[in-house]
Amino acid sequence: MKLTLNKSEKSEHLYMEIYHYYRDLIMEQKLLPGSKMPSLRKCASELRLSRTTIENAYLQLAADGYIISKAQSGYYVTDIATKQFLPLPPKSKKQTGFRYSFASSGVDRESFRFDLWRRYIKSALRQDERLLSYGEFQGEADFRQALCEYIRDRRNILCSPEDIVVGAGVQSLLHILCPLVLDKKTVSFPTPSFVQGSTVFSDYGFEVRYRNKDSGVIYVSPAHMTKWGEIMPVSRRLELIRYAAKNQSLIIEDDFENEFVYLQKPTPSLFGLSGGQGVVYIGSFSKLLLPSIRISFMVLPPGLKEAYQKKAANYNQTASKAEQIALCQFIRDGHLSAQTRKLKRLYSAKLKQLLSAVETIFGSGSQIQIGSAGTSLALTLSVPYTGEELQKRAANESLRIPILKEAPGEVTVILSCSSMPEQDFLPACRLLKSIC
Amino acid sequence: MKLTLNKSEKSEHLYMEIYHYYRDLIMEQKLLPGSKMPSLRKCASELRLSRTTIENAYLQLAADGYIISKAQSGYYVTDIATKQFLPLPPKSKKQTGFRYSFASSGVDRESFRFDLWRRYIKSALRQDERLLSYGEFQGEADFRQALCEYIRDRRNILCSPEDIVVGAGVQSLLHILCPLVLDKKTVSFPTPSFVQGSTVFSDYGFEVRYRNKDSGVIYVSPAHMTKWGEIMPVSRRLELIRYAAKNQSLIIEDDFENEFVYLQKPTPSLFGLSGGQGVVYIGSFSKLLLPSIRISFMVLPPGLKEAYQKKAANYNQTASKAEQIALCQFIRDGHLSAQTRKLKRLYSAKLKQLLSAVETIFGSGSQIQIGSAGTSLALTLSVPYTGEELQKRAANESLRIPILKEAPGEVTVILSCSSMPEQDFLPACRLLKSIC
Repeated sequence: MKLTLNKSEKSEHLYMEIYHYYRDLIMEQKLLPGSKMPSLRKCASELRLSRTTIENAYLQLAADGYIISKAQSGYYVTDIATKQFLPLPPKSKKQTGFRYSFASSGVDRESFRFDLWRRYIKSALRQDERLLSYGEFQGEADFRQALCEYIRDRRNILCSPEDIVVGAGVQSLLHILCPLVLDKKTVSFPTPSFVQGSTVFSDYGFEVRYRNKDSGVIYVSPAHMTKWGEIMPVSRRLELIRYAAKNQSLIIEDDFENEFVYLQKPTPSLFGLSGGQGVVYIGSFSKLLLPSIRISFMVLPPGLKEAYQKKAANYNQTASKAEQIALCQFIRDGHLSAQTRKLKRLYSAKLKQLLSAVETIFGSGSQIQIGSAGTSLALTLSVPYTGEELQKRAANESLRIPILKEAPGEVTVILSCSSMPEQDFLPACRLLKSIC
Repeated sequence: MKLTLNKSEKSEHLYMEIYHYYRDLIMEQKLLPGSKMPSLRKCASELRLSRTTIENAYLQLAADGYIISKAQSGYYVTDIATKQFLPLPPKSKKQTGFRYSFASSGVDRESFRFDLWRRYIKSALRQDERLLSYGEFQGEADFRQALCEYIRDRRNILCSPEDIVVGAGVQSLLHILCPLVLDKKTVSFPTPSFVQGSTVFSDYGFEVRYRNKDSGVIYVSPAHMTKWGEIMPVSRRLELIRYAAKNQSLIIEDDFENEFVYLQKPTPSLFGLSGGQGVVYIGSFSKLLLPSIRISFMVLPPGLKEAYQKKAANYNQTASKAEQIALCQFIRDGHLSAQTRKLKRLYSAKLKQLLSAVETIFGSGSQIQIGSAGTSLALTLSVPYTGEELQKRAANESLRIPILKEAPGEVTVILSCSSMPEQDFLPACRLLKSIC
């Protein structure tokens, strides 16, 4: 390597000369991607320059992405000259690629009025001034006000905006709630299926149990007791409230899918029944709007509210401010209620359709469990396969079927009508039958 | 109360009659909001009906929001008839209402191109199909790909999209990271000021310390060592990496404000310098785009990545899918780099302006600390007040000044140029002087 260096120049200048020398070699691909740079020591002695000068040059090259250091090995030329981009990871089957999907994670593609939602987001994004600052820790005040009125009217929950905490999904809320109730030590879930919930609790050191009323925290979804939409009868709701009050357990009422209860009998919220004593109410919108809109909220009872407020400033708001502003107006203009009514009608009809499709294909004698709420039914199949095998066979036919449980010689699958169009029910069921 | 009841009718019917009777009384305001309903026992005996029938009627009334139960007290009529809404909470001073604000939480209102961002959100919201499903746990694949290339080019960080986890703010990422490194037990922060970070760690039972290199986790912001924008010199970065590697400590590199380093010397990322060994890199956009856009990401090193992937499905994505899609395209079209260059020029100029304004008003002899990065300087004032008193006096003049620290007879305030328009520098400084 030849460098004409005027030794009188200060090393600042020197290291830049070395920097440029190597940069050009790399960009002209005379030094190829992956090739090793001379060690600092070697390069320094060759040029009779201080190690520091070389190191500065290398650091500049590294900072600019021409070379990269590998631990205990030295510096290597990156692919910056060829700019070959890193490959995309294979998209998980979970996300896409099924011809028919009985999964409940999506929503009916006809049901959501994108045009309308776009309009609300657009007007939210016009509030420049508001978007220039961080959101309120607890959630936007006007949004919390709108939520107040919404759950007061729909779920008989009387609270004030100060009792409401907004977050990007239920987990974000639990991340605020759990630290406030660590002393409860144990938590009970109805089933192991809500892994996102139990994970957060166990992350905080809670002992997670199932269907154990004698736990410090009792997590329930009264409108979604089972995957096939059983709801908690009023008698048991009252009993649970009394029992929890006696034991001073905290009830977390995740009101998931309360909107899709298709019968006449009243289904009062635990929070309403208890007058808000010892119950945290959690609501979310992923089933009403779009799963991709990450907005949930919780209503804190007296005691917990004060405990939260002491720490409120320690937790940044996670939900998008623009989406909060949009949803606030969306609710105030009555679109959420309208959307809810629409979906309730839709899913109620689709679920009936799905049931008859299943009975047509599998015979009315087939083992079907169906509740009075939700978007799914459970079908038990007599098959010579394990759940996993069945799921694989289905996947090969581009059919997605969530497995509920299995026993020797039989597998119970959960069929949801939410994201599958009605006209697919029969062909999808036929396909399922064909692989059993 | 008179009811003509055909006893032969089934109680289903009975309870609805009672329901309607009371509902009408309430809506006609013959039963006023707040008034107590007769007890179940009393009502049942009066009507010679079963307690269950009455309870069902009350539950229906409650479910529909006409009455509400209060613990250990009974049922009361709600204000549903008068529909008086709950009052809005007083907006916290924190959020708004200052004539001049030296806080760093906002961004320059001229700097952000809302029109442009709106366009990208709009086109993201046109991807109906994509928005109908939940986001990928780890963040949208194409967005992670774009982030990969962005940090590779800007920060010399070589990683693949599988190493990146997206979340709604740094806390959301720490909520995923902390449970993976519980065995580290202790965490060190540079200062107590980043309370949102330390809170998450202490919530998980970590012992939180300050400037203690012998901790299991070392949290640093190399481009934001102090509020007045000191950066970590390269020598110390290398030293820290070596020391942490020796102790097998995990470094969390929060690259906050690395974009606003106004000097020529290279500032390589710790992740890049270490070749990604034992360093978690965290980046966010609140300072580059809008604070109200809640998108951050972390790059996991080998080991942690595998540990995360085992649990990935247990954590729902918190960041808005639409905003991820929009930001992905925004980055690909080069707007983020352009915005960064623009802000760097802007803040560098504004900070100089602010400095000269401070020197003009407080004299060049005044105690000023200013770093080579960021948007703030520290000014130490000799005042007969405590920090809190000074802050109050300022607030009375509608001036917001964050306090850094205080000693007998002096208070050090942090003045940020980020959200304040240049023309306000002199008047705001004058105002500050006037209350000292």
